[in-house]
Amino acid sequence: MTNLPKGFRAGAVAAQIKKNGKPDVALFVSDRDAAAAAVFTTNKVAAAPVLRGREILKTHAGSLRAVLINAGCANACTGDDGLRNAHDSAQTTATELHLADPAQVFTMSTGVIGMQLPMEKLRVGIYGAAQALSEDGLDAAAAAIMTTDVVPKTARIEFADKGWSLAGTAKGSGMIHPNMATMLSVVMTDAVVSPARLRLCLQNAARRSFNRITVDGDTSTNDTLLVLANGASGIKPSREEFEEALTEACVDLAKQVARDGEGATKFITIRITGAASEKQAEVVGRTIATSPLVKTAFYGEDANWGRIVCAAGYSGEDVEPTKMSLWFGGVHVFAFGTPTPYDEAAATRAMSPKDVEVHLDLGLGDAHATVWTCDMSHEYITINGKDRT
Amino acid sequence: MTNLPKGFRAGAVAAQIKKNGKPDVALFVSDRDAAAAAVFTTNKVAAAPVLRGREILKTHAGSLRAVLINAGCANACTGDDGLRNAHDSAQTTATELHLADPAQVFTMSTGVIGMQLPMEKLRVGIYGAAQALSEDGLDAAAAAIMTTDVVPKTARIEFADKGWSLAGTAKGSGMIHPNMATMLSVVMTDAVVSPARLRLCLQNAARRSFNRITVDGDTSTNDTLLVLANGASGIKPSREEFEEALTEACVDLAKQVARDGEGATKFITIRITGAASEKQAEVVGRTIATSPLVKTAFYGEDANWGRIVCAAGYSGEDVEPTKMSLWFGGVHVFAFGTPTPYDEAAATRAMSPKDVEVHLDLGLGDAHATVWTCDMSHEYITINGKDRT
Repeated sequence: MTNLPKGFRAGAVAAQIKKNGKPDVALFVSDRDAAAAAVFTTNKVAAAPVLRGREILKTHAGSLRAVLINAGCANACTGDDGLRNAHDSAQTTATELHLADPAQVFTMSTGVIGMQLPMEKLRVGIYGAAQALSEDGLDAAAAAIMTTDVVPKTARIEFADKGWSLAGTAKGSGMIHPNMATMLSVVMTDAVVSPARLRLCLQNAARRSFNRITVDGDTSTNDTLLVLANGASGIKPSREEFEEALTEACVDLAKQVARDGEGATKFITIRITGAASEKQAEVVGRTIATSPLVKTAFYGEDANWGRIVCAAGYSGEDVEPTKMSLWFGGVHVFAFGTPTPYDEAAATRAMSPKDVEVHLDLGLGDAHATVWTCDMSHEYITINGKDRT
Repeated sequence: MTNLPKGFRAGAVAAQIKKNGKPDVALFVSDRDAAAAAVFTTNKVAAAPVLRGREILKTHAGSLRAVLINAGCANACTGDDGLRNAHDSAQTTATELHLADPAQVFTMSTGVIGMQLPMEKLRVGIYGAAQALSEDGLDAAAAAIMTTDVVPKTARIEFADKGWSLAGTAKGSGMIHPNMATMLSVVMTDAVVSPARLRLCLQNAARRSFNRITVDGDTSTNDTLLVLANGASGIKPSREEFEEALTEACVDLAKQVARDGEGATKFITIRITGAASEKQAEVVGRTIATSPLVKTAFYGEDANWGRIVCAAGYSGEDVEPTKMSLWFGGVHVFAFGTPTPYDEAAATRAMSPKDVEVHLDLGLGDAHATVWTCDMSHEYITINGKDRT
């Protein structure tokens, strides 16, 4: 069981929004006003809850009380009706929780794009989730926000000696770049953190975690990472301490998302070193992680390293093949522009574990970054060929 | 049979560079000096023949005589040895054809990245292809440059009344964006065209043809489109007439490449209208065509139009969902930010032919562009999981 920080409760229920009848409405509630910060999708086609969420944080970044999430319908490409439905579901939640203002309720949706929310079912779901709220509710809520995810994802960091903790959940399996329509995550802490500091720490944490995973290169209409700090512990950690803990929790959740990528059979760590800048390392790593040719080669356990060097070459960064070196696991396959006389059997063996690591040194500087992804399998095609059925 | 323009011959032979023993060395020869222009991959990791080709055209854009192409080995990521091998194969070809200068021989390679060219086999292949040269050799050459291609690709445009013609071939099936390591194409004409005009016309033709197809979003290390004009007809068409014919031939070849995309079961035409600029229309179209989620939905014949609107949203272009409209075949599914009350069965029917068309109007201006791609199937994964074996 994953414990929630002090002052938080969570609950979930099956409201028949998902066709398979599994839990699909989750509610997270703080017993007092919480500071809040969020990172949203950069997609110009942003879902109704994203549009509403951006507005809410302009006025209520210091007084959030609840987060309502439904799975099964993304409420994206739904126009004015979609915005009204997002607002109405927040209003229903606020009424049920005896909150003064519906703007204290943040909403998120995930699922198929282009369908209106089934408001009758969602209303019943809100009542049910509110009944189910408990201090032990994080695991149930984590399961309710899943779509094509195979496993629920939670993370928790506790500083028992210092008296504060942090816990959260994430969902996402396809359309991860960071994109089924969506990557959603809620992280909660009982530490005392101002909204301004929370925003800054979240941006840094997101950059090193959720923005370093990719499943298929599709950026969704709904991606949202929300962090709430309700101060219930009374402890005010230093900025460094808080940012480090938040980053650690986000990296943990992000890696779980990549590992559970749609149809994934392997978890791939791509380490880029020797870059001119951290940004360059990130861009090269993300380009490699997004390439269908790289991802299918891992699925086939084929040490086809040329595809990795090729992807680095079209990343848009100013790389130079004669300065590059590449390792599969511990096998050095490419050095300064030419293949090494490596042992093909050893390279193939390095591809066979479920967790594989690739290390590309660009030979340009001292900066580095690590990116996580998964392979692309027959199952990915099966899942996405019939996603709506 | 696809006839060559006047003064050109082609030949092909099996030199055992491909593991399957099929023809793998092709030679194209002009009986007199030809003007030449080329468009190359933008990948920073450019293969040895690309590096050499760029140099040759600086000095011999008015005096090319032959093109040597091998399939089965890309001669990419091969360092100085690779450059030397590219040069040596041109030298062998020049000697065999009694040419004064090896720089009159353009070389291209396609196949696996990171292997050195098997020079003994290639030398034997050059002798064989030179023996096989004939005015009827285009179809045999088109087959010899194939890698994972299922069908050979040729195009021909003849202006019988005007006395000049144009014919060419292309290969490419994966790593098409415009990327197996490669898209290669050779187009030949007997029209009289200066090197400067040839370069200009080729750039315009490439932009509207090969740069508007995508299979998997991977830009290869070897992509090369070469055009030769030997003037053997004695006819000098106007710039407009020549550019139009060249564009038509390139569009024909490019569409054949997209249709033969690795594992493709459908050919998809994506028409973008109402764009603020042609470039915007191109970028939006290419982003949609590259999305694995869009491509798998077509494979599954699932009218999941939300993925198309979503991809337009993350294209980086300044689009506005409330101005967009989308049609599958003739079925209007999305209008000004909201779903239309369309008939789901009709939308699914619109997905079922082998050739499907999507039309997205951005509602921002008058510019338009059409992009061509294919679906992504289980077979794509099978082909690319074990490409080297």
